[in-house]
Amino acid sequence: MLEEVRSGALNVDAALDRVKHLPFEDLGYAKLDHHRALRHGLTEVIFGKGKTAEQVKGIAARLLEKSQNLLVTRANAEIAAAMKELLVEAEYFPLSGAVRVWRDRQVIGKGTISVVSAGTSDIPVAEEARLTCEVMGNEVDAVYDVGVAGIHRLLANSARLMEARVVIVCAGMEGALPSAVGGLVSSPVIAVPTSVGYGASFHGLAALLGMLNSCASNVTVVNIDNGFGAGYVASLINRL
Amino acid sequence: MLEEVRSGALNVDAALDRVKHLPFEDLGYAKLDHHRALRHGLTEVIFGKGKTAEQVKGIAARLLEKSQNLLVTRANAEIAAAMKELLVEAEYFPLSGAVRVWRDRQVIGKGTISVVSAGTSDIPVAEEARLTCEVMGNEVDAVYDVGVAGIHRLLANSARLMEARVVIVCAGMEGALPSAVGGLVSSPVIAVPTSVGYGASFHGLAALLGMLNSCASNVTVVNIDNGFGAGYVASLINRL
Amino acid sequence: MLEEVRSGALNVDAALDRVKHLPFEDLGYAKLDHHRALRHGLTEVIFGKGKTAEQVKGIAARLLEKSQNLLVTRANAEIAAAMKELLVEAEYFPLSGAVRVWRDRQVIGKGTISVVSAGTSDIPVAEEARLTCEVMGNEVDAVYDVGVAGIHRLLANSARLMEARVVIVCAGMEGALPSAVGGLVSSPVIAVPTSVGYGASFHGLAALLGMLNSCASNVTVVNIDNGFGAGYVASLINRL
Amino acid sequence: MLEEVRSGALNVDAALDRVKHLPFEDLGYAKLDHHRALRHGLTEVIFGKGKTAEQVKGIAARLLEKSQNLLVTRANAEIAAAMKELLVEAEYFPLSGAVRVWRDRQVIGKGTISVVSAGTSDIPVAEEARLTCEVMGNEVDAVYDVGVAGIHRLLANSARLMEARVVIVCAGMEGALPSAVGGLVSSPVIAVPTSVGYGASFHGLAALLGMLNSCASNVTVVNIDNGFGAGYVASLINRL
Amino acid sequence: MLEEVRSGALNVDAALDRVKHLPFEDLGYAKLDHHRALRHGLTEVIFGKGKTAEQVKGIAARLLEKSQNLLVTRANAEIAAAMKELLVEAEYFPLSGAVRVWRDRQVIGKGTISVVSAGTSDIPVAEEARLTCEVMGNEVDAVYDVGVAGIHRLLANSARLMEARVVIVCAGMEGALPSAVGGLVSSPVIAVPTSVGYGASFHGLAALLGMLNSCASNVTVVNIDNGFGAGYVASLINRL
Amino acid sequence: MLEEVRSGALNVDAALDRVKHLPFEDLGYAKLDHHRALRHGLTEVIFGKGKTAEQVKGIAARLLEKSQNLLVTRANAEIAAAMKELLVEAEYFPLSGAVRVWRDRQVIGKGTISVVSAGTSDIPVAEEARLTCEVMGNEVDAVYDVGVAGIHRLLANSARLMEARVVIVCAGMEGALPSAVGGLVSSPVIAVPTSVGYGASFHGLAALLGMLNSCASNVTVVNIDNGFGAGYVASLINRL
Amino acid sequence: MLEEVRSGALNVDAALDRVKHLPFEDLGYAKLDHHRALRHGLTEVIFGKGKTAEQVKGIAARLLEKSQNLLVTRANAEIAAAMKELLVEAEYFPLSGAVRVWRDRQVIGKGTISVVSAGTSDIPVAEEARLTCEVMGNEVDAVYDVGVAGIHRLLANSARLMEARVVIVCAGMEGALPSAVGGLVSSPVIAVPTSVGYGASFHGLAALLGMLNSCASNVTVVNIDNGFGAGYVASLINRL
Amino acid sequence: MLEEVRSGALNVDAALDRVKHLPFEDLGYAKLDHHRALRHGLTEVIFGKGKTAEQVKGIAARLLEKSQNLLVTRANAEIAAAMKELLVEAEYFPLSGAVRVWRDRQVIGKGTISVVSAGTSDIPVAEEARLTCEVMGNEVDAVYDVGVAGIHRLLANSARLMEARVVIVCAGMEGALPSAVGGLVSSPVIAVPTSVGYGASFHGLAALLGMLNSCASNVTVVNIDNGFGAGYVASLINRL
Repeated sequence: MLEEVRSGALNVDAALDRVKHLPFEDLGYAKLDHHRALRHGLTEVIFGKGKTAEQVKGIAARLLEKSQNLLVTRANAEIAAAMKELLVEAEYFPLSGAVRVWRDRQVIGKGTISVVSAGTSDIPVAEEARLTCEVMGNEVDAVYDVGVAGIHRLLANSARLMEARVVIVCAGMEGALPSAVGGLVSSPVIAVPTSVGYGASFHGLAALLGMLNSCASNVTVVNIDNGFGAGYVASLINRL
Repeated sequence: MLEEVRSGALNVDAALDRVKHLPFEDLGYAKLDHHRALRHGLTEVIFGKGKTAEQVKGIAARLLEKSQNLLVTRANAEIAAAMKELLVEAEYFPLSGAVRVWRDRQVIGKGTISVVSAGTSDIPVAEEARLTCEVMGNEVDAVYDVGVAGIHRLLANSARLMEARVVIVCAGMEGALPSAVGGLVSSPVIAVPTSVGYGASFHGLAALLGMLNSCASNVTVVNIDNGFGAGYVASLINRL
Repeated sequence: MLEEVRSGALNVDAALDRVKHLPFEDLGYAKLDHHRALRHGLTEVIFGKGKTAEQVKGIAARLLEKSQNLLVTRANAEIAAAMKELLVEAEYFPLSGAVRVWRDRQVIGKGTISVVSAGTSDIPVAEEARLTCEVMGNEVDAVYDVGVAGIHRLLANSARLMEARVVIVCAGMEGALPSAVGGLVSSPVIAVPTSVGYGASFHGLAALLGMLNSCASNVTVVNIDNGFGAGYVASLINRL
Repeated sequence: MLEEVRSGALNVDAALDRVKHLPFEDLGYAKLDHHRALRHGLTEVIFGKGKTAEQVKGIAARLLEKSQNLLVTRANAEIAAAMKELLVEAEYFPLSGAVRVWRDRQVIGKGTISVVSAGTSDIPVAEEARLTCEVMGNEVDAVYDVGVAGIHRLLANSARLMEARVVIVCAGMEGALPSAVGGLVSSPVIAVPTSVGYGASFHGLAALLGMLNSCASNVTVVNIDNGFGAGYVASLINRL
Repeated sequence: MLEEVRSGALNVDAALDRVKHLPFEDLGYAKLDHHRALRHGLTEVIFGKGKTAEQVKGIAARLLEKSQNLLVTRANAEIAAAMKELLVEAEYFPLSGAVRVWRDRQVIGKGTISVVSAGTSDIPVAEEARLTCEVMGNEVDAVYDVGVAGIHRLLANSARLMEARVVIVCAGMEGALPSAVGGLVSSPVIAVPTSVGYGASFHGLAALLGMLNSCASNVTVVNIDNGFGAGYVASLINRL
Repeated sequence: MLEEVRSGALNVDAALDRVKHLPFEDLGYAKLDHHRALRHGLTEVIFGKGKTAEQVKGIAARLLEKSQNLLVTRANAEIAAAMKELLVEAEYFPLSGAVRVWRDRQVIGKGTISVVSAGTSDIPVAEEARLTCEVMGNEVDAVYDVGVAGIHRLLANSARLMEARVVIVCAGMEGALPSAVGGLVSSPVIAVPTSVGYGASFHGLAALLGMLNSCASNVTVVNIDNGFGAGYVASLINRL
Repeated sequence: MLEEVRSGALNVDAALDRVKHLPFEDLGYAKLDHHRALRHGLTEVIFGKGKTAEQVKGIAARLLEKSQNLLVTRANAEIAAAMKELLVEAEYFPLSGAVRVWRDRQVIGKGTISVVSAGTSDIPVAEEARLTCEVMGNEVDAVYDVGVAGIHRLLANSARLMEARVVIVCAGMEGALPSAVGGLVSSPVIAVPTSVGYGASFHGLAALLGMLNSCASNVTVVNIDNGFGAGYVASLINRL
Repeated sequence: MLEEVRSGALNVDAALDRVKHLPFEDLGYAKLDHHRALRHGLTEVIFGKGKTAEQVKGIAARLLEKSQNLLVTRANAEIAAAMKELLVEAEYFPLSGAVRVWRDRQVIGKGTISVVSAGTSDIPVAEEARLTCEVMGNEVDAVYDVGVAGIHRLLANSARLMEARVVIVCAGMEGALPSAVGGLVSSPVIAVPTSVGYGASFHGLAALLGMLNSCASNVTVVNIDNGFGAGYVASLINRL
């Protein structure tokens, strides 16, 4: 753009205007950066919590003009209904509160992402990770209910885990599974503490602290119940 | 005693006096209940922290009149010196801060107590558990550095663990090992969180919370770094 | 099995298959380790929280094929209904959220387990411990409402407590009772903090911390409101 | 004073000046309210922590002009030395960090204040309470090392406790003793959590929470290790 | 009783029986110590939270046989209804969750108890304190909405406060009022943190910590929202 | 007034009475300090939480006699209805729980106050700040959805931000925006953590801690979700 | 600059270079933004903690080339020595850890900033605020030791406080003073919690929470012990 | 191995022995898994904290027999000395407590890893990340002192950041930088909270929580001050 200004093809005011208006579109309650996702080849995402159904719908409508796929996280039933109204193929996953528009199903990830859950109760978070990976173009291998208190269930799946390019591990309660998985594989492990538990689990805090202190060196951590974030980063890694 | 009063063998004042004076001896700064340990066949223990060396020595002197063995926990070097002055065979374990008098080495535990540590850094706490079990008359099998991030090291020792009547597991950081051990054995597991770690381990809090939330049902927990407590309870169980 | 392979009775592929498939059955959302409970002579348990009624029912159906008794913890009304649908003799305990199938009522515990509550409000947790002990084959002696602020109520029951082989103590608020009980008896005491209280009890945290810091050496602790866990460990100890 | 103004005996400016200057003396770094203690017949107290030895000495010098007795709390060795320089009869209690000037030893409390400690390690805090009560004109009955894990030691002293007009109870670790004492007596109990303990005692937090949640209704609580505060309030009550 | 045994007026078995049965009555879910309240001249109190309406009613029925007055704290509407069913004159105070039976209205307190609230929103807790003081035989002076941010409102009431024999101060948010009141009066101040506030008040924690750290030496603290406890202790003090 | 007493124009009793009664009006449940707001030229504010609709209405009625504008914060629907009943032009903002009476719309602030939100979900809190600034006589410039993860959206608005005399920044989750804004402008920045987020946001605690630790030196902080407080202080600054 | 490019006075590469290099100078371990302080007429500040004395000295040398005044916060003795080596007139304030270069002593603030401390022990933090205000060109009025437990000391200074354009209030322990001051004045109040206290003050947390929950609407808060931050913001406000 | 058993080449006992002894070497205090690092092509690492210098030296000696490179983390001066004794080319980095043996300097990472620090004080942690990446065969680009309060310093480096294959961001205080970096790049960002800060930073907790709640979706988090962990995972990703 500086070149255009230099050549006179663009006058200064217009350049300033373009600088001001180009990078995002302003809906008043939201500023949409269409460029970012396009530039990076990423899926658009809307954080649903604290937004009205109307706001989510408004944002989604503009994003879907330029994007095939879309994910809404932390959506309640009202937001889900608004999204289905907007686009009939929007899928709602009530357990994790995700709404997914998955029109472009091309696989772009280079390997498989393994999504592991410690218990049956952690599956909703694991599913959020899985559907995020899928909508971002990845093959997913789900391995559920292999917590450390039944270590043979985990070991019986170690070959599958070792084949994955990235591993996501969802666990509540003591959050011990990422350490055990981290010791088995040499790929990056993304740990997702879940709020499964009671009492001194303090809504996932115990699992979170456990994962942050993992003695396995290949573990990084995302927020409690943040299956989406784990799926997103795993997808970025799997594109490399 | 009521019978004696009834028969006149004991007059009321004497009975009251006995009631008042019998159960413990009053040193002013401490009231010693000789009866309790004798009655239960247990080893006498002094909690050293916050006591002066003189106080510990004074208490120990009286207890050793009636007891062969004695343990002082949370002892500093000054207390250790005072104890060695009192009794030359007192052993000092500086890492765990224990002083042990172990004159009666009879084995009374019915089986073996397994003492497991997740890492090398957890050994001082594990040693406190071990020396407590020993002084209370137990055979101990120590299995060190078998944390969950190297699960094969644990599995290679599973036969030994399964033979133990009680298992003590010491782990810092994420505190995941008790869950894995708990899944392997069917005996009671006593978990000891250690303060090994840094940052979000919060001096053992992460390990403590992890253990309290263990998904293995056979796990109970003691205070952070409380190797003594674990050894004590394990000894009680092993007497049954 | 290695012997069978050696002798040719089992070919290598079959052996590998058996290794892979034997230890558990895979329902997709859950991997059932029939062997573990059978091997250890333990009662099967399902953690109900975070599972759908369908999932619990599915798991229960498979477990009950091989097991006479079964416990579901943290079950809501929906899960309870599904369980009753599955098996009419399933009992639901709404206060603690337990569902129990108790078909084999053989006593295998060697002594009595005492279940103590500090207050009337702690009874639901104590009841969870009691029904766990029962379904695992133990005689239980319940001693309720003997908190430390009325120490004579506790002392009046000390003979009963001293006869128990293991003692479970449930207390909310300040959680002081396990220390007092621990001082009276020489058996292992399993302390269960309850979420009874308000304000600075922080949903059981005050009681939990109190119990972890007990000055009675024979006390170990389980998670807040975890009557089941206490009952389970007590049963293991009582089998020794 | 308004009357004096009315009668002309005091002019308005002088009245304003008196209002401004009377109630306290300004040392720059401290504003001394001589009137308050005089008015209430209370002992002067200086909180030593965070003050330089010079500041404490300066404040003490002015207060001692009008007051027979004086207490400095949280004093380090340097402050203690400065105080002894100022007044040779100043006593230093290094364990609790108190410096006491006790020239007027008249007893004004109407009954006895009982100062109870759970363990030997809690004695420094109990001593701070005791010396506060004494300097404020009270008879004190010290009952040490009667923690709940040896309940008979407490019961053997219950008659003494029941005779006290106010009871101060100092306890670390699980902080259970105030509840037990509160159940025995019908006088007000002031609970002082101490920082005695380790691990999950979190420097007295466990004891503090326990005491705040006491199921005995006659218990109020002061800050961790605040033996002074307990002694001060007990003295106020004992004057009633 | 020992004398009776000595003289033969009481045989040993009967004595033992009396020892066992006298001090309390056992309802199974509760052990009622009629003697304690009678002995101390105190009002009977039932902690309602976690008890069923049936349990509260059962306990209340037995207590009211021997006691004119009764207080149920933390009662929900169901418990209140059960109490009104039992005794038509039972008053229910829904804001604080108290049920009061106040048949004996004799004043036994020696002076006035002042009950102070920082804001209008703290009144429910203050009212719980007030009604407790009343049912225990005290004159109460209520001074509401005099928080420190309008210090003149407090000062305008300082004469009333200085006349009280005991002062109860209820405050949420920053919990600053007890310090200001403590500086004005020389009587004991009982501080009650309330859960009034939002955000970083953490349900009363901010006020609680503030009060525990009060720089006024005459302040002790009870649990968050524990107006009852404050009223109870104030009543004990006012009887002295 | 002292002068009036001096001259005899006011007798002493009347003066005392005026001193006692003037500064505020006592409604029993509330003491209204009309003088304060008048004296300072500020808008009257009622904290609605914990007050009954009747109480708020009663207070509002008295305040509106002397004040044109009024704000009720933390109002529920019932309070809002009572306020509308009292005065038809009262506006209710349900997202932030504010009720505003804005009859005097004179602008008295000297410059513009910028109200910034990190995300769309933070707008309710930002709106509370905005409506507070408006009712206190300020021009407001709202800049929404410019969080740090899309830094170009913020930079595109930096000119607007630099023109403001005071900047209010509302952000949940990691609460990073005030630091970035603080680095762009040289005016005072008031940071408002919002409770937007989940998991380890702990209801706004993460944002609060982040803002308190801001490396931008021009940032001060108010309570979580306290848009009102931020607007109030910004208004005070903008009057200077 | 865009205009210069347009006119050809600046070629595109040079413009890009200027854009890249102008705004700050890169020392490797630090990037100095000379423009910011110059642009805003602010004093340069270096956060000393975690930097080596060499690093601080290196940064200071460069800043002092363009700036008359400089403040180093959180400096240890080694840093202070390095600063004195660099510039003999650098003053070191060991209590607060500040090093100040104050060569330009012009007053630019429009009014007085009042710096208030609750106790003598809070003076070091108050002094950090004072010296920050001074070096930024403000008149400061220091009012020390006027905590809420001696409310008359505060009221006697209320006239001085009401004259200030901004008020800084430093308080530890319960942190109640900002609320009381906030109620007296109508200017903005910046509250600084100090780490003065012990036990449940948790190193200033109690004071911090108290201040965040202040019921006075004109209070904002900075980090614990952050006298510098308070002085900085007060200076910005006083320039308006 | 099963094949060997089948063929008779290996007898069953030898197979069992190999299973037991092969995977790791047992030093008593440590069990070394040579296979893991070899198998995965990773650098060997020893966690130094809590180990004696002798233990570290012993472990290092065995590992260096089979490995060219080695890292010791959390090493104190004594451990560093022991390591230098063992191998003269061991480098000690006292700020981060790392000891590095870097004999094989082959680059195996596919792209550049960018290591970013928010401030100068965060450099020690950033350096730990850098030296870990280097010893694991990566090119590193260090970008220091680009915190969000001077956003232009960050933007001036955005091109470098966008070229990196993985980005590590180290920040203390409010921990806001990872969100800003995450918004600029589309590669995975590994956030490392540092313990830089004071007061309400709570030793890195504020930064940790901020990063876990990052609104940038490409951010994962490791433990406080865990530069090593971030470097390790970044290296794994950069090998893909």
